[in-house]
Amino acid sequence: MAKILTNRADDYSQWYNDLVLKSGLADYSAVKGCMVIKPHGYALWEHMRDELDKRFKETGHQNAYFPLFIPKSFLSKEAAHVEGFAKECAVVTHYRLKNDPNGGGVIVDPEAKLEEELIVRPTSETIIWNTYKDWIQSYRDLPLLINQWANVVRWEMRTRLFLRTTEFLWQEGHTAHATREEAIAETKQMLEVYATFAEEFMALPVVRGVKTANERFAGAEDTYCIEALMQDGKALQAGTSHFLGQNFAKAFDVKFQDKSNNYDYVWATSWGVSTRLVGALVMAHSDDDGLILPPKLAPLQVVIVPMFAKDPEAQAKVTQVTQDLLKTLKGHNVRVKLDDDENTRPGWKFAEYELKGVPVRVALGARDIANNVAEVARRDTKEKSSVSLDNLADYIVQLLDDIQKNMFQRALNFRTEHTVKVDTWDEFVKILDETPGFVSAHWDGTSETEEKIKELTKATIRCIPLNNELEEGVCVYSGKASGQRVLFARAY
Amino acid sequence: MAKILTNRADDYSQWYNDLVLKSGLADYSAVKGCMVIKPHGYALWEHMRDELDKRFKETGHQNAYFPLFIPKSFLSKEAAHVEGFAKECAVVTHYRLKNDPNGGGVIVDPEAKLEEELIVRPTSETIIWNTYKDWIQSYRDLPLLINQWANVVRWEMRTRLFLRTTEFLWQEGHTAHATREEAIAETKQMLEVYATFAEEFMALPVVRGVKTANERFAGAEDTYCIEALMQDGKALQAGTSHFLGQNFAKAFDVKFQDKSNNYDYVWATSWGVSTRLVGALVMAHSDDDGLILPPKLAPLQVVIVPMFAKDPEAQAKVTQVTQDLLKTLKGHNVRVKLDDDENTRPGWKFAEYELKGVPVRVALGARDIANNVAEVARRDTKEKSSVSLDNLADYIVQLLDDIQKNMFQRALNFRTEHTVKVDTWDEFVKILDETPGFVSAHWDGTSETEEKIKELTKATIRCIPLNNELEEGVCVYSGKASGQRVLFARAY
Repeated sequence: MAKILTNRADDYSQWYNDLVLKSGLADYSAVKGCMVIKPHGYALWEHMRDELDKRFKETGHQNAYFPLFIPKSFLSKEAAHVEGFAKECAVVTHYRLKNDPNGGGVIVDPEAKLEEELIVRPTSETIIWNTYKDWIQSYRDLPLLINQWANVVRWEMRTRLFLRTTEFLWQEGHTAHATREEAIAETKQMLEVYATFAEEFMALPVVRGVKTANERFAGAEDTYCIEALMQDGKALQAGTSHFLGQNFAKAFDVKFQDKSNNYDYVWATSWGVSTRLVGALVMAHSDDDGLILPPKLAPLQVVIVPMFAKDPEAQAKVTQVTQDLLKTLKGHNVRVKLDDDENTRPGWKFAEYELKGVPVRVALGARDIANNVAEVARRDTKEKSSVSLDNLADYIVQLLDDIQKNMFQRALNFRTEHTVKVDTWDEFVKILDETPGFVSAHWDGTSETEEKIKELTKATIRCIPLNNELEEGVCVYSGKASGQRVLFARAY
Repeated sequence: MAKILTNRADDYSQWYNDLVLKSGLADYSAVKGCMVIKPHGYALWEHMRDELDKRFKETGHQNAYFPLFIPKSFLSKEAAHVEGFAKECAVVTHYRLKNDPNGGGVIVDPEAKLEEELIVRPTSETIIWNTYKDWIQSYRDLPLLINQWANVVRWEMRTRLFLRTTEFLWQEGHTAHATREEAIAETKQMLEVYATFAEEFMALPVVRGVKTANERFAGAEDTYCIEALMQDGKALQAGTSHFLGQNFAKAFDVKFQDKSNNYDYVWATSWGVSTRLVGALVMAHSDDDGLILPPKLAPLQVVIVPMFAKDPEAQAKVTQVTQDLLKTLKGHNVRVKLDDDENTRPGWKFAEYELKGVPVRVALGARDIANNVAEVARRDTKEKSSVSLDNLADYIVQLLDDIQKNMFQRALNFRTEHTVKVDTWDEFVKILDETPGFVSAHWDGTSETEEKIKELTKATIRCIPLNNELEEGVCVYSGKASGQRVLFARAY
């Protein structure tokens, strides 16, 4: 079988692009920086969305939908926000086209110019807080716990499929609270929802932490994050949860009357994850032969491939056993497919389902049936087992669970091996170049040092881990006093 | 209780706006023509989406996602399409803002002008067929059965909540086929998916039909539609399914190699329904006290309202019985809520849940329990029944089913009463003014007559019903020969 992917060891970045394109997750589009999410990629995102949505609802949130467009003036109402977001936005200036009188197709109608330009939302704090002003008058209207599933646009100069695209899909939660404490508790709760989702469903261990001032969301008082490690030793921010203080309430004048009839500004949070998670999933687990998908998110969990027999009687048995297995597995709520297409060879099918990351493959031929066994191959380790037909379905259900756990444990082991405590600058630089991963080092707490380190090594402070141990030390770069280690890495 | 809605008889249009706003379905936004879909409205849409999505998948379709933006030049590639869609579009001309050097907030950076303007999709045929060109080479790649859930923008001058908004949410299916026959069969199949969804889930009887050339989708060879009748006698187009012939394949040069190694252009369909369905649901069923939602789509199907007792022992019984009922109904997969908020009176709750359209309300107090009964009120007819506690849950489950059926039957009766065969012009005009509804009349088949009738009466041909009886007659307007009746109405 010809190799269809570049090997990770040869060119990790090319391997990733090959894999996303060839496994049918996504495709480039005619619009610079925008991708087409193909059915296999969209099915993965749907499974993520459904599971997250369930968890949002279990924690009391409701979905709503706010406009795609934001009046330009809204973006400048919150001082820090404008710096962070007003820059790279798609701007709508006109609302009509007309036929080119010179016959050159259609042209923008110069008479249909908007009085105020509209910005395609890069995030929705401004339009949402402008709405909340009408919805919140009293403590009885709080907390307001709303989420939206939407597309957003940030005009990126350098894009990568899933990881950084001009348009992407995401959810953004926007909540309003009566007290600072309640808003902070919400911020932390949603971070934990993201973290447990990543670990339990994506089989992706994450560090829960808080960002430094430099890396904070534009308009937040604190940005909490989950950070994951990819197989090339680069970190990837997989989700953020922001405590916004009263910044947006002040910018949009959202006050409420409390139980004592006093007025105060409302406290806010926002939190989001995006289709970037699909990229993280691919980069964390897959191998040189294709995707490796965790069973809980795999659109297809099991594929059954019958080996055709020439003898009609033997063939009838193969058909019967594979059909029975299909039915039994469906009864166990397994997402399973029987691929009995006679026009493609089993070998071709094996490679195809490996490429697509199907966790379990069952192959069954006449000789297997005569021996009362089936060949079961697991995608994560590529191990094959001969399993008795008597308890095949139970074995597969258990195997899916084992694969989910094994994938998490493998990723956790990788992260443990690639998280190194470093106390000297030479070692810091050496680790980043030679065995990259998370570098746990002391930092003097200043933005100047943080920026200097980034300039010299391209590593950023990914986060200050929550529940970090306090420890006296000296900054790995400046030698100044430090009270705790932080996590550095190069990142996507 | 003060009336909170305008009565339908006084001002149907104002009643609709009042209802949408006050029942919490939607709100106006800061962006002209765009609305905010509030949690109650979005929950309705989610139920519609989930049910439709299931039916799309059962008929072999997969979801994908294509870019929000379409290069301007794409819109002019299909001759008819450009006439229909290039006109009222949001146009992105720039990709960056910058701080106003004069301190006036942010301004559009004149240096960040796009070489080719991008159009916010009004529909996605062009960008999708440009992509299909890369995906389709051979008959083995067909049929390609793809759907996308997305937001679209059409710059409307006059907007109405849900019914006609500048941005709206919808799904658009785009399929590619090897033969004309298969594409036509797909077009009809999806129309039937829409029709059965509308009738079974929305309790909304629809006429299945085909549009006249005048009312056809821009770029289609045939547009099939489902048409529903609202309580004011106006029709509403609830969904369309288009047979696109080879028009888009030719415009984007999408050919395939058939089994005999010949090349031909691919045959296409597209089909969509939108958040407009929420407006149709409201207008078809609701009354002067609020929404009436069909149980299959109601976010909340049953509300339990306990009547508080002063005696602690009696109160404990009320709590126990209502909690038990809550649990039992949840066990029956009923979407149920126990509203035991002590700060609002039962009367206030009754009005609130009526406004929101909850199909069944159960009220339970100490005296009811002493009599071993509960008071069950159904929203559709407002009938109240005293029901034994012994079979209360079973009664409610059956009642939900009855309400669903009753709502459909009521809407069907209304439509039957408001569908009138008319043979003279005077009668035609009179019916439309005095007892509006569907008018079944002969038409001479010309666009001129169709336009003249529209000009004179504001009525359009909603459709030529499928399986229409052929019948010799003369056009109600021109007196020319006609072979069948068509359905006229004023429409949303």
